[in-house]
Amino acid sequence: MIRSFHPPVRTLMGPGPSDVNPRILEALSRPTIGHLDPAFIQMMDETKLLLQQAFLTSNELTMPVSAPGSAGMETVFTNLLERGDRVIICQNGVFGGRMKENVERCGAEAIMVEDLWGSTIDIDKAEQALRDNPDAKALACVHAETSTGARSDVGVLCGLAAKYDCLSIVDAVTSLGGIELQVDEWGIDAIYSGTQKCLSCVPGLSPVSFSERAAKVIRERKSKVQSWFLDLNLVMAYWGGDAKRSYHHTAPVNSLYALHESLVILQEEGLQNAWHRHALNHDAFVAGIETLGLKFVVDKEYRLPQLNAVSFPDSIDDGRVRTALLNDYSLEIGAGLGALAGSVWRIGLMGYASNKKNVLLCISALGNVLAAEGLAVDVSKAVAAAQAVYAS
Amino acid sequence: MIRSFHPPVRTLMGPGPSDVNPRILEALSRPTIGHLDPAFIQMMDETKLLLQQAFLTSNELTMPVSAPGSAGMETVFTNLLERGDRVIICQNGVFGGRMKENVERCGAEAIMVEDLWGSTIDIDKAEQALRDNPDAKALACVHAETSTGARSDVGVLCGLAAKYDCLSIVDAVTSLGGIELQVDEWGIDAIYSGTQKCLSCVPGLSPVSFSERAAKVIRERKSKVQSWFLDLNLVMAYWGGDAKRSYHHTAPVNSLYALHESLVILQEEGLQNAWHRHALNHDAFVAGIETLGLKFVVDKEYRLPQLNAVSFPDSIDDGRVRTALLNDYSLEIGAGLGALAGSVWRIGLMGYASNKKNVLLCISALGNVLAAEGLAVDVSKAVAAAQAVYAS
Repeated sequence: MIRSFHPPVRTLMGPGPSDVNPRILEALSRPTIGHLDPAFIQMMDETKLLLQQAFLTSNELTMPVSAPGSAGMETVFTNLLERGDRVIICQNGVFGGRMKENVERCGAEAIMVEDLWGSTIDIDKAEQALRDNPDAKALACVHAETSTGARSDVGVLCGLAAKYDCLSIVDAVTSLGGIELQVDEWGIDAIYSGTQKCLSCVPGLSPVSFSERAAKVIRERKSKVQSWFLDLNLVMAYWGGDAKRSYHHTAPVNSLYALHESLVILQEEGLQNAWHRHALNHDAFVAGIETLGLKFVVDKEYRLPQLNAVSFPDSIDDGRVRTALLNDYSLEIGAGLGALAGSVWRIGLMGYASNKKNVLLCISALGNVLAAEGLAVDVSKAVAAAQAVYAS
Repeated sequence: MIRSFHPPVRTLMGPGPSDVNPRILEALSRPTIGHLDPAFIQMMDETKLLLQQAFLTSNELTMPVSAPGSAGMETVFTNLLERGDRVIICQNGVFGGRMKENVERCGAEAIMVEDLWGSTIDIDKAEQALRDNPDAKALACVHAETSTGARSDVGVLCGLAAKYDCLSIVDAVTSLGGIELQVDEWGIDAIYSGTQKCLSCVPGLSPVSFSERAAKVIRERKSKVQSWFLDLNLVMAYWGGDAKRSYHHTAPVNSLYALHESLVILQEEGLQNAWHRHALNHDAFVAGIETLGLKFVVDKEYRLPQLNAVSFPDSIDDGRVRTALLNDYSLEIGAGLGALAGSVWRIGLMGYASNKKNVLLCISALGNVLAAEGLAVDVSKAVAAAQAVYAS
């Protein structure tokens, strides 16, 4: 006989899921109601409004996809592209590669513009690709590369896409709620995010938003969207603005309670305040980590406050350190991914997890484990360095 | 400012979601852990085992898809089919039509075998289609048509598919946990279900299972699966049996806690006991509903105990009755769907909602509302008729 599962209580400082606010866990467990219940439809309308506020957009086509961020990515590509379309993808980490997979599986062609992992997307190379490919339908880029911790200037990239009459597509899985993101101001045509990063919600949903220009492309497709489940022309009969909502698929009711609550919390804090909090905790974290003698992969200018790729000396056994943190401190940090596997840790300070307590815990726990591994580190000095940032 | 959402407490007797066991809501709200946490991987292994027990299968490729039942359907078709394949679909309601949409969006051809809505799938017509289409790759059918309440004999249908060297695909969204379903015994090659029906879990996941024959077809595809998110050749690096699990997408951690708990509850009750309970409550419900003078759409032999399509006199205003039940009794029943919209109600007795309290509530509430609408009904006689079934 298998028994009920009672998870250990962790501190989640990996690349996501991040620590979930207890208010959100409580919201998640509220009684399930029908996906066509008038009370639920009202909550859907509120969620849409809250998402528009979080994305800083007035896009009518704004909603959460009923599946994780990867499905949000697929929603964007599969709805915007038709067979034979060409898309410029700026890749500087794992998720640009996933975009390529998505584009190709739509029967479209991916034109790759590659940058080093850990660097920001090179604006000049992107513009050159736009110039070289006047028939490209879209330019796609990742705002916050979760695999490396690098921020790219999607505002400038989307402006360039518009200049060359291209749609712009932005992956904001790790950026929404953590750093400045302006969907309307930057002219982003299609964007997708995740719930388990800086929104501190449980994983499983993917907020998306489309400009009117992108929505028109979807409405006027020649071929059907290859995914029935993700076909926005159908989904909008349920999520659209009409008073009458038609069944498409059964919405993940309780997960949507949780997303609503996470967005209420974000609204209470204020978007700018949330960005500021992420920046402050990051500064304190950097002070501590650098005092421990560790290095950041990404240059300061393009470093994400919410996702810190930290490299470690060759002498250190990656797996043993992470296991010690998990077993002795119930603290999860992330391993490297793709090209950076085995050479970096990815330490998240996302959403609810971006707080002083976690910063100090991580510095002192990691410092102690590294000391036990034989590295000459001054843990109390590192903790003091972080503390000093808060005091200043 | 938008505030936290507190849903009304409903009794859910529609076509799903059904009432969720409070144990499952509590499990849902347990602290989130990482999707690669060793404790979580162990829970995944248990979930797989519990799903195998619920499906009565030893299929290695058994797991929950990280999205609702419609995505489970899409997982099956998109992984098994390649462009140009032909699939026989036996349709006797809405969900056969959705299968057709899925098949066509895979670039495959759907050969439709149509039966009346509310009837069971005609075995002879299905065999004729198999005979007429020797090149068909698969035969697909719905075990429990949620749009009509009809059960089809998928055991016989899958046997026929095997005889004609076809893969068999079964929609078990509304049947799993509610009526007899034997994946191995019946030779089902691919099956998908939902969590929000007879498992009484929250909506958002879709358990699937594939025979070794079907798994081989997926492994040996010539073309890539058109959905990256649903590509089982990739997903299995995360859900597969290897000790080392690779990240594919971020699993919906808390929803998976809930599914695990719902399967633990099913194991505690025993699968056969759960089927028996659904049958008993259905019998009591029928006695009450027929005493109210209402008729069932589906012949007794093929009637689903968990989803009751009940027709009502033309004089009755469908929407007004359902609104009265919702407002005065906080009771949700379902409207008709597709061809049956406006002429039937779909009343679910699924999973945790299949209990004596709900049966008696529904008969007495519906009876009272119908009386207020001017129908000559004897509510106490109807309640007594249902009670008598329990007493016998």
